[in-house]
Amino acid sequence: MSLLSETIQKIPAIDQTFYEKALDRLANQARPAGSLGMLEDASARLAAIKKTLDVRLPNKYILTCAGDHGIVAEGVSLFPQEVTAQMVYNFLDGGASINVLAKHAGARVMVADFGVNYEFEPELPIFHKKIRKGTNNFFKEPAMSREDAIAAIEAGIETVNEICDRSPVDMIGTGDMGIGNTSPSTAIIAVFSKIPIQHLTDRGTGLDDNGLSHKAAVIDAAIKRHAPDADDPIDVLSKVGGYEIGGIAGIVIGAAAKGIPVLSDGLISTAGTLIATELAPTARDYLFAAHQSVEIGHQYMLSRINIQPLLNLNMRLGEGTGAALAMEILDAATRVLAEIKTFDEVSIKNAHKES
Amino acid sequence: MSLLSETIQKIPAIDQTFYEKALDRLANQARPAGSLGMLEDASARLAAIKKTLDVRLPNKYILTCAGDHGIVAEGVSLFPQEVTAQMVYNFLDGGASINVLAKHAGARVMVADFGVNYEFEPELPIFHKKIRKGTNNFFKEPAMSREDAIAAIEAGIETVNEICDRSPVDMIGTGDMGIGNTSPSTAIIAVFSKIPIQHLTDRGTGLDDNGLSHKAAVIDAAIKRHAPDADDPIDVLSKVGGYEIGGIAGIVIGAAAKGIPVLSDGLISTAGTLIATELAPTARDYLFAAHQSVEIGHQYMLSRINIQPLLNLNMRLGEGTGAALAMEILDAATRVLAEIKTFDEVSIKNAHKES
Repeated sequence: MSLLSETIQKIPAIDQTFYEKALDRLANQARPAGSLGMLEDASARLAAIKKTLDVRLPNKYILTCAGDHGIVAEGVSLFPQEVTAQMVYNFLDGGASINVLAKHAGARVMVADFGVNYEFEPELPIFHKKIRKGTNNFFKEPAMSREDAIAAIEAGIETVNEICDRSPVDMIGTGDMGIGNTSPSTAIIAVFSKIPIQHLTDRGTGLDDNGLSHKAAVIDAAIKRHAPDADDPIDVLSKVGGYEIGGIAGIVIGAAAKGIPVLSDGLISTAGTLIATELAPTARDYLFAAHQSVEIGHQYMLSRINIQPLLNLNMRLGEGTGAALAMEILDAATRVLAEIKTFDEVSIKNAHKES
Repeated sequence: MSLLSETIQKIPAIDQTFYEKALDRLANQARPAGSLGMLEDASARLAAIKKTLDVRLPNKYILTCAGDHGIVAEGVSLFPQEVTAQMVYNFLDGGASINVLAKHAGARVMVADFGVNYEFEPELPIFHKKIRKGTNNFFKEPAMSREDAIAAIEAGIETVNEICDRSPVDMIGTGDMGIGNTSPSTAIIAVFSKIPIQHLTDRGTGLDDNGLSHKAAVIDAAIKRHAPDADDPIDVLSKVGGYEIGGIAGIVIGAAAKGIPVLSDGLISTAGTLIATELAPTARDYLFAAHQSVEIGHQYMLSRINIQPLLNLNMRLGEGTGAALAMEILDAATRVLAEIKTFDEVSIKNAHKES
């Protein structure tokens, strides 16, 4: 059996007993029922994942997954392809956006190369998981072979396994870096949702109106040419996806198999997450959506996966920045469940109980 | 001159030079322009308030303002009035929702009594600012006299001044506790917005459909009876407001006068904040909206004040819980501005500069 199918089969069910216990405790806390909204939902699911009402998440990781994209030859991005590799070095130097926000959240950033068009020094402290130096230009040919699509996902699974072998991991946030990668992400949700590409395409790093309609036309033509099969997520990934998107899919599946909650970041991360949940619907129980990206296609991904975003701060950066911020919200949610006292623990009248 | 008008006149303009410097730095950071959305806006305004690009907010306070409401005699709330005082003790014991979320945010909770219907022991470590033991039932008579409305606002100003006399204060989050206080809050936004009360009234701690229409009818009748003058915020506060709402208005004005940023919490806090900005429009520059409450009237308050909520987590608890959570977002925003490196500080091609 392949690593991928073996890992999918290993995803454990979350603990329904702890879920119910959590809901009970939340309902009995000295405050109006339901008044902490999404913090309550999140805390109950974390309790079910971690099998305790006092969930602690000290070991948080952001896995920023990098890859390059042949589609940039069609002029779909404002930044040149070299920026992908340059940003990998920037992540390692610690001055990038994700370093700053992860530090604030108490999370460690780790970078994985699934397909950057650059030869990194082998001693560079990243996960060296390169499948190829960038995808093919999917306007002209499939982005990658079916074998490479599976290899990218399995490389993501291996990345999670290797981190877990080194040290405890309580939560993983996904992140991405890849010039041009809003195009494959948009193509992926277009294939699954069947919504016309014009309604799904957005400006990425800042395209103008002409750039935007060109990008939509390129993606539309590519989908028509390759006709990816929406019932076969690997086919979708191979025809219009990206290596880092496959890596992210593998990270989601690998984390779920180890019982680790995952925070999915924005458009690109959620494209990978969507590949994961289409392959392994049970992974959804371990998933949290960090935020609602400005990129229009993101909302359709979240709605297909059926998860609510925790934040909506008009962000559209990627790297894992939304995931890092949302870690602080999930941390707070764990404290809500564990620490707010119940009506029984304090002496306050509960109107709902009395009525 | 009264303390109120004196304090309003003292509100300093924020520093436009630091605002521009912040926008410059944000625009030059090694990431797509505008990609960190509301974090950027917030960090620039904090820079203008604090006159530095490296804003630090170590001394954070949540001021939870308590008061009782005669309107509960009309059956507009599910909880009995005694709960207001009981919750004050719960806040002091440290097991309430606001204690838990403030602790997570590194903020200190202080409680102020502006009008609880209970005689607290003088040695209780709260701000003893009681105007009266609860408002009048504003269904039948004005909630309070004009003098008492001014006294409540000035008591809020004094509260800020007293905290600042003791120790440095970098940020204040507002909070509330008062059984029945969604009714005066809803009445206040109804008077200012002139939107029909049926569109503004919500379920508070959990009213059913009958309770909801009864509550709307009570508020509607009260507004028709007293005809508060929307051009006179003190008249509005006195006729349909509450003591803790006046206290919150004073806290907002007092904090702005001292150059301290304020995070406004949900429906009740924002009712107080609205009274403040109607009296002192310049206070708006110091204001941040913590979250979008589930309570329907809240969005109209935010839109009248013209501020965007940072969070939207389906919360409707009050106490300052949204403000506490949002403090973590504002803290992160300060790090975004100070720590993310610019294109000049790293060697990455900037497509926007080159084009």
